[in-house]
Parts: sequence; C-alpha cells; structure tokens
Amino acid sequence: MPADQPLGEFQLIDRFFARARRPTRADVILGVGDDAAVLRLPADHDLVAAIDTVVAGRHFPFDSPPHSIGHRVLAVNLSDLAAMGATPLWATLALTLPAADGEWLGEFAGGLLRLADEEGVALVGGDTTAGPLTISVSILGSVERGTALGRAGGRAGDVLVVTGTLGDAGAGLGLCMGRLAPMDPAAAEALVKRFQYPTARVAFGRAARGIASAAMDLSDGLVGDLPKLAAASGLAARVDVARLPLSDALRRSLPIGPARELALAAGDDYELLLAVPAPRLAELEAAARRLNLMLTAIGELIPGDGVEWLLEGASYAAPSSGFDHFR
Amino acid sequence: MPADQPLGEFQLIDRFFARARRPTRADVILGVGDDAAVLRLPADHDLVAAIDTVVAGRHFPFDSPPHSIGHRVLAVNLSDLAAMGATPLWATLALTLPAADGEWLGEFAGGLLRLADEEGVALVGGDTTAGPLTISVSILGSVERGTALGRAGGRAGDVLVVTGTLGDAGAGLGLCMGRLAPMDPAAAEALVKRFQYPTARVAFGRAARGIASAAMDLSDGLVGDLPKLAAASGLAARVDVARLPLSDALRRSLPIGPARELALAAGDDYELLLAVPAPRLAELEAAARRLNLMLTAIGELIPGDGVEWLLEGASYAAPSSGFDHFR
Repeated sequence: MPADQPLGEFQLIDRFFARARRPTRADVILGVGDDAAVLRLPADHDLVAAIDTVVAGRHFPFDSPPHSIGHRVLAVNLSDLAAMGATPLWATLALTLPAADGEWLGEFAGGLLRLADEEGVALVGGDTTAGPLTISVSILGSVERGTALGRAGGRAGDVLVVTGTLGDAGAGLGLCMGRLAPMDPAAAEALVKRFQYPTARVAFGRAARGIASAAMDLSDGLVGDLPKLAAASGLAARVDVARLPLSDALRRSLPIGPARELALAAGDDYELLLAVPAPRLAELEAAARRLNLMLTAIGELIPGDGVEWLLEGASYAAPSSGFDHFR
Repeated sequence: MPADQPLGEFQLIDRFFARARRPTRADVILGVGDDAAVLRLPADHDLVAAIDTVVAGRHFPFDSPPHSIGHRVLAVNLSDLAAMGATPLWATLALTLPAADGEWLGEFAGGLLRLADEEGVALVGGDTTAGPLTISVSILGSVERGTALGRAGGRAGDVLVVTGTLGDAGAGLGLCMGRLAPMDPAAAEALVKRFQYPTARVAFGRAARGIASAAMDLSDGLVGDLPKLAAASGLAARVDVARLPLSDALRRSLPIGPARELALAAGDDYELLLAVPAPRLAELEAAARRLNLMLTAIGELIPGDGVEWLLEGASYAAPSSGFDHFR
C-alpha cells in the first residue's frame, strides 16, 4: 500500500467488515466491536463448534483470487457443521496477513461475506494480525438436542454413500498449480471452480439426521477420511472403487486410473460420507433428490478394522494415505 | 524430528492432546475427534465467543518457551471473556506449525492444558496445519442472559479503573528481546513472567457485572484501548497519568518516565479497564479486595470525544498509539 496512506489495523477491519457491525441476525446480542460476541442459542438446541485453518501455499496457491480464498475458508468450516447435521449461525475470523493490502482485503471480505449471506451466517468477531498469510475461521451453529450426526454411530451392514462427485477439487488444484495440463477448457474451468468455490452440503447434512447412522466430510480424501469413520464406529469398511462417482469434467480431463486416484486421495472436495442402514437407503436417496444432489453407494461397513478397496472383485492398491499436512 | 520416525498429523494430535479426548466437562456432548464439537449451554445463558491469534516473532519472540506460548494463547482469549463478565467453558485450537516437533508440541500442549484445567475449560476441537508458526484459539463461554459487560455502557461521570499494574508485560518483552537491560534480577524475572504468563481476570470480570457500566481488556495498551471504550460509550475520557498503577518490579527496572510510557502504550498486560458510576466504586473495590486484586482509579468519562492525558494538572504527551499490528 502507498506509504502516504497508512491504514491502521482497526481502520482496515472497519472498512472491509463494516457490514458485519450491523448484525443480520436477531440472535446476535453483541457482535463485532467488543471484546467478545454475545449470542443467543435457540432453546432446546446444542451448540456445534469447529475451527479450520487455511495457509497460503499449503491449502491454496499464493496467487489464488482473494475472493475465492474468502469463500473457501468459510466453506470448509460450513462443511464441518454440515457433517454434524447442524445449522451454521455465526462465525469469527482470525486473519493473519503479510501486509494491509486494501484491494486484497476487499476481495477477500467480498468472497467470505457473500457466502455468509447465502448461508445466513453472521460474522460476529475477529482478530487481524500481521504475519504470513494464515486464515482461521471458527464456525458456530446449533442442532436440536440429541440429533447431531457423529462418526461413531455406524453399524455393520450399513451402506456407505457419498454426495456429489469426488476428485474434482484435486484436479482443479492440479490445474491451478500447473501440475495437470488442461485437456478441455470448459472441463478445466469447472474443476478449478470446484477447488476454489467448494459447496458445503449443509441442507443435506440436516436432512440426513435421523436417517444416517454416521457422517463426516471429505476434506482429506476418502483414503484419509473413511478409516476415521470406520474406526470411530469400531468397524472395517469395504469400498468398490468402480463405484466412486466421477464427474464428466474429471473423466474428460484424465484417464480413469489417475481420475480414481484423485477421487480416493486428493481431498478438498468437501462432499459428505455417510453410513446408512440398508433399509433406510431409499429415504436418504429421496432426501438427496429433493436437494438435487447426487448420492452414490460406494460400499459398506463390515466387522473388523481397516478398509478393503476392491476393483472388479480384486484387491485394489489405493494410494496409501490421504492429505496429511506433515508428510 | 528424526527422518526415521515420521509422525503424521493425526498421530501428533492424538499424542499431545489425548487427554482432551476424554472430556472433563459434562456439558461436552461430543469433543475432539469428530467434525465438530457438540456442546450444551446452561439454560438461560447466552453464548460468549471470541478468537485471538498469536504469531511467532510478532506477539512473542521465536525462542519463547513453548510452555509459555501455550499458556499465553489461551490466557489472551480468557481475557476477552473476562472483559465481558463471562465464564469460559470450551476452546478450540488452530495450530499452524513449521514442523512436527514432538518436544515443542509436548511443552506447548502442557502450558495450554495446565491453564485450561485451572480455569475449568475443555479443549473440544482443533485443526493442525503445516506453515509459519501461528496459533489461534477460539474461546467459548456463557453468561446469564442480559448480564454481559460491554464497552458501550459508560456514562459521563463514571470513574475509570484498572486492575493490577500496567507496563510489566511490555518491560518483560523488552527484557526477552534484549531491548531492556536487567537492572535487578528478581525484578527482571517477575516482569518476564508477566509477559510470558499473563493472568486473565476472569473472576473479577464476573464480579463486576451489575456494578461496572462498561469494561474491556487491555491487550493493546491504555492509549490504544481506552479510546475504544470511550468512543463505544459516546464519550471522552480524562486520565491522570500519575495515578497509573506501576509495580515495584517496573519501578526498580526503569525511571518513572519510561515506566509510564510502557504502562500507557506497551500492551500485553491483559488487565481489565472498567467504567463504574462513582457511587458504586466502593462496591467494585470490595469485590477486588475479596479476590486479592489491586484496583486503581485512573480518571473518568466526560462528555466529548478523545482522551485527555494529564500529569500534575498539565497536558501530558502520551505516546501516540497503542500496539497496532500494521504500523
């Protein structure tokens, strides 16, 4: 920023998040601008809380459009609440920035606040600090008492289903990073958009309560995440790799083998993985249809531990781990 | 860490925060290990939420003891709830680390969890990512409906009071950074401790509800923070600089002029600043005495805007701004 126009931290926050000072929800008793927010939870609801961080150069390329970074950091948090069947209500933002760049902040705030408006989420507080670009959002929501979906409720025989298609965001990131060459411009654009603007499956998560037995979101890829759901439920899982839902855009951009590897291991799709008792699968499918959301059965929970990956009846060597930040 | 002992993200979290998986509070319905935590707020209470970040090299020296970093990042968040008169209940942690260093993580977790235990706070979730050392804590608490202390309730004529002593943490940081030479070893140790292990005034914040008209915590120094309380209350403030409470350790370490400058501008003390109607000052003083906490009247709220700093009846040139991360 120009040296003749220094902007202090507080002015910056005021300028770009000014709208957040006027609470859009009646349950925000005290929002941005005090030491903490005061919030009114609906009666007979539990609080649902998660925190997720995105780091420049790690979770997104340094040159990502700031608007997409703002969208993405909120979407990945919304996805955690979606996996619980919770309704997102409020968010706080911890923003660490190398410099007070007005243009960057304006676009970032625009992306974050647009999605917040779409989902009815109020930004109720935050902290801005100088440092390497790192952004955490703490998301807060509610769920009717006793109805939250966890990872531990799966039972042997439950069908494993996933929403949407898998691997798109991984291919989109590969295209952004120049590791994957675009074959088809329209497909490439669709894949990049899936990485930059993920959609949290909030409405479906809510609809799945009382039907699904367990749920989680796919942030680290199926090979990283499914073992956690299976272990939390005290079970093993079996997956038919041929049934993984792959988008047309992904199929047009990659041969089937690499497309499946992305669907298994790339992460960043923010689709939901659910376990559902077989007799109730039709109900869950109906709920997905009402939301115009694809739902695909990919396998089942079975006694034991670990995950068995199969392709045409034979054992399939899945990539050995999901996205693990320290490997 | 040794190349022959790679530790994945999940194992690290498991190892160092394993205790947090066994919730210590009955109101934690679902804690660490799912997509989000499910928490039960007491009846007739509002939720109080804040987020604060500390960045290595910015908020603490790179070589700070990890135990003190763990303490400090929770304490600065507890302080935000203290300023609202809220009771801290739960916290989530967003930890960005350059490397998975087991020794560092063990000490960091020890410092954070010790303070969490002391304050009865359950760590209910988190996210660990690789990147430059940046730590955010989102703190969640409760307050009986309608009793939260804000910044906006001050009235003309209210007395301004502060807890404890000011400037110690600033001197402690100066000593850590080698910018200040230790004059007296015992004093230096006390000042460094005040920087590394700040105490949030949680019990006093709760006691001040119904007595004080406004409150905030002093994280950015009096010259940075008091104008915010005054502006939120639509008033000006007048402060007698001679009345700023200075510790013996600070007086032994610095001449009175520089000591006052630190007390005004250094930040990091995490004491509380409150406005209290003059007829109720004695009640607030009694509450402080019961908690063995010093309370000092330093000025008053008056009609107008801005802050008037006085020393022996004359205008005093206070340092021009508090700690502002982008200046």
